[in-house]
Amino acid sequence: MGRVRGEAGRVSRRGLLGGGVAVAGVAGAFVTGRATADEAPPAGGASASRAPSYDFRGVRQAGIVTPAQDRLHFAALDVVTDSREELMTLLRAWTVAAERMTTGLPAGEIGPVEGSLDLPPDDTGEAIGLAASGLTITFGFGPSLFRDAEGRDRFGLADRQPEALRDLPHFPADLLDPARSGGDLCIQACADDPQVAVHAVRNLVRIGFGTTSVRWSQLGFGRTSSTSVTQDTPRNLFGFKDGTANVRAEEAVALEENVWVGSSDDASAAWLVGGSYLVARRINMTIEVWDRQPLGDQEAFVGRTKGSGAPLSGGEELSTPDFAMPGRGGPIIAADAHVRIVHPDQHGGARMLRRGYNFVDGTDALGGLDAGLFFVAYVRDPRTGFTPVQNAMAKHDALMEYLKTTGSALFAVPPGIGPDEFVGQALFD
Amino acid sequence: MGRVRGEAGRVSRRGLLGGGVAVAGVAGAFVTGRATADEAPPAGGASASRAPSYDFRGVRQAGIVTPAQDRLHFAALDVVTDSREELMTLLRAWTVAAERMTTGLPAGEIGPVEGSLDLPPDDTGEAIGLAASGLTITFGFGPSLFRDAEGRDRFGLADRQPEALRDLPHFPADLLDPARSGGDLCIQACADDPQVAVHAVRNLVRIGFGTTSVRWSQLGFGRTSSTSVTQDTPRNLFGFKDGTANVRAEEAVALEENVWVGSSDDASAAWLVGGSYLVARRINMTIEVWDRQPLGDQEAFVGRTKGSGAPLSGGEELSTPDFAMPGRGGPIIAADAHVRIVHPDQHGGARMLRRGYNFVDGTDALGGLDAGLFFVAYVRDPRTGFTPVQNAMAKHDALMEYLKTTGSALFAVPPGIGPDEFVGQALFD
Repeated sequence: MGRVRGEAGRVSRRGLLGGGVAVAGVAGAFVTGRATADEAPPAGGASASRAPSYDFRGVRQAGIVTPAQDRLHFAALDVVTDSREELMTLLRAWTVAAERMTTGLPAGEIGPVEGSLDLPPDDTGEAIGLAASGLTITFGFGPSLFRDAEGRDRFGLADRQPEALRDLPHFPADLLDPARSGGDLCIQACADDPQVAVHAVRNLVRIGFGTTSVRWSQLGFGRTSSTSVTQDTPRNLFGFKDGTANVRAEEAVALEENVWVGSSDDASAAWLVGGSYLVARRINMTIEVWDRQPLGDQEAFVGRTKGSGAPLSGGEELSTPDFAMPGRGGPIIAADAHVRIVHPDQHGGARMLRRGYNFVDGTDALGGLDAGLFFVAYVRDPRTGFTPVQNAMAKHDALMEYLKTTGSALFAVPPGIGPDEFVGQALFD
Repeated sequence: MGRVRGEAGRVSRRGLLGGGVAVAGVAGAFVTGRATADEAPPAGGASASRAPSYDFRGVRQAGIVTPAQDRLHFAALDVVTDSREELMTLLRAWTVAAERMTTGLPAGEIGPVEGSLDLPPDDTGEAIGLAASGLTITFGFGPSLFRDAEGRDRFGLADRQPEALRDLPHFPADLLDPARSGGDLCIQACADDPQVAVHAVRNLVRIGFGTTSVRWSQLGFGRTSSTSVTQDTPRNLFGFKDGTANVRAEEAVALEENVWVGSSDDASAAWLVGGSYLVARRINMTIEVWDRQPLGDQEAFVGRTKGSGAPLSGGEELSTPDFAMPGRGGPIIAADAHVRIVHPDQHGGARMLRRGYNFVDGTDALGGLDAGLFFVAYVRDPRTGFTPVQNAMAKHDALMEYLKTTGSALFAVPPGIGPDEFVGQALFD
């Protein structure tokens, strides 16, 4: 008797989701909610609760001003081919798969279980039955995509490399692991279900097999920023609210000034207008040492109360810090307090859109937790929006005693795409 | 002007939770739900959705038959003192903190922000505003707690070491990393919010400072087992449903036979009666190679369909496999199919209660994802309940080509405790 496939073989992610993907996608005018919010949420598996989905196509890439999802899988990849055509083919394939997965569909048209038994499935299957879970997939291009370490033009793109897209300078106290730094391409997958984020990266990596290899990847288990006024500010592993002065989706003017690349920013990078730069930094926290500091010292280092996140000068979380207010033997917000060092007022008004995540990657060699903040920030120009702030922090910030940056990367994140375009297409036109 | 602490400083996890911890805790007769299920869920932060809480005290430790939560933080620790008294003091302190945290309270009585500015807080604060999130904390004792590598009795416990609590034998294809194996003590923290699980382990590690150091720790982002008939079977990173034949909370007889240590099992280990053994195995999957296998081969290796999880002999997920049913050129469930090799019928009826989690720990040296299954199983006796099954799997299972075990540990998990007892107290009485 030959093998017979029953009903069992035909369950697909699509099938389980049915037509009722619930949508709560309101991340700004450019993210259009699909379907209607009053449709019933999908029935089924443990994670099939009401979850939003976000359009992959639009004026901007999703995953920047989208309300920060709870979980992250970030991957940096190197291109292993010399062929510009193969690189473009990959970006086309990634676009198709990303658009599918962000709606809750399998990565490929056939799906994880509906195809021929004689072929590998075009989806790996671990997301069968899971909802879209607010998945966003955001792609970026690293400096090394344009010129290799010897300065060679790898794909005929060198004359389009933005001036601002150069390796970040070495900062004081950087202890970078080359195996956790750099990369030709990046994929930021954010979702409210970690299995959905992992599934997205894994399937994009699978599609890239032969064209790319993974240079490093990072899971984040808890968001540390809010990117919308509708979200509470979460806590980092110091136990503090972080990113209170974040640029948020609702601040159209601040986004134009601080996040989106403008049309007159760089004559050689017209393809990047409307995009942004993504700064990724893997920042280990020495949390065991931190946990032994008195509460007052912790708050003095940060410049905020640990409870509400209000500045030590008083008020509520969102109150403007009063850096002149006197305290005992000096200003109440100390000269080396984090909130003062990185405050936009100290940097010509420069603000970032932060989108970081807490991570714990097991144990370090000394028996401490290998834990900290995977810092992700979007800026209009890293030379003015990130480097001066990071230099000031590295030199003067009281928190630096408890931080060790072990990974670093910079990527140019192209704008969104219209129908029939592939991600980053303008770079190749 | 001196520093004045405002209202802001007084926000605590307790305060934000109010009195309304929602409860949906039904894990068996010995886990008693607290409060009433019809109370309103807590208001507040992003993770403050309706979440159950589970009693830390009871006939059994929670976290075994408790419906498997979505996220895991597991830590193995070594005791760095020679003092039996210090070890007992630690277990007392852990008991207090664990009981508090599983109800959504801070680890210590003072809390993260309500204490003196001149002292370190007795809670690290990153769970402020988060609900109990179904947190369970389960403790275990490794073989090395009883005798060190030279066979010395470290804490006067050697004559109470169970016969079954010895390092697991070396299995074919084990590629164990000593830095991911063994440990004097273990903490399994499971919750539906990863930040709550991480917070629990971190605070227990903090309390252990000077008495213990972390040997290894592991995060799991997605459960791969259901421990209750009320739960769907989730998927591992092969994309398959796993653990279908799991012992579940509702199977009282099977639990007695396969999971709980019986009163006549071991005369030297009366303290362990009603407890269990926890087998932990970090199993890397070569998922990139797996993803290139034809669907039919994947299903043949597993012996189940990828869609519904039904045995290849037909039926539904929970149907009994028909190992005699003929297929093309042999039985339809192949001789080396995983489901056949590990089936209880092949091992005198031995079943385990599995409680594993998917993990991704970044990237391996070859540019693949460092990903797989953190296998956790509870058994009444690892010599009969685990070792024969693992030996058969290592020698004969078609899946082994895609698996590499990089970590391994065994712990005795004492039974639950009554009022005023500390975890594992019977071991010291």
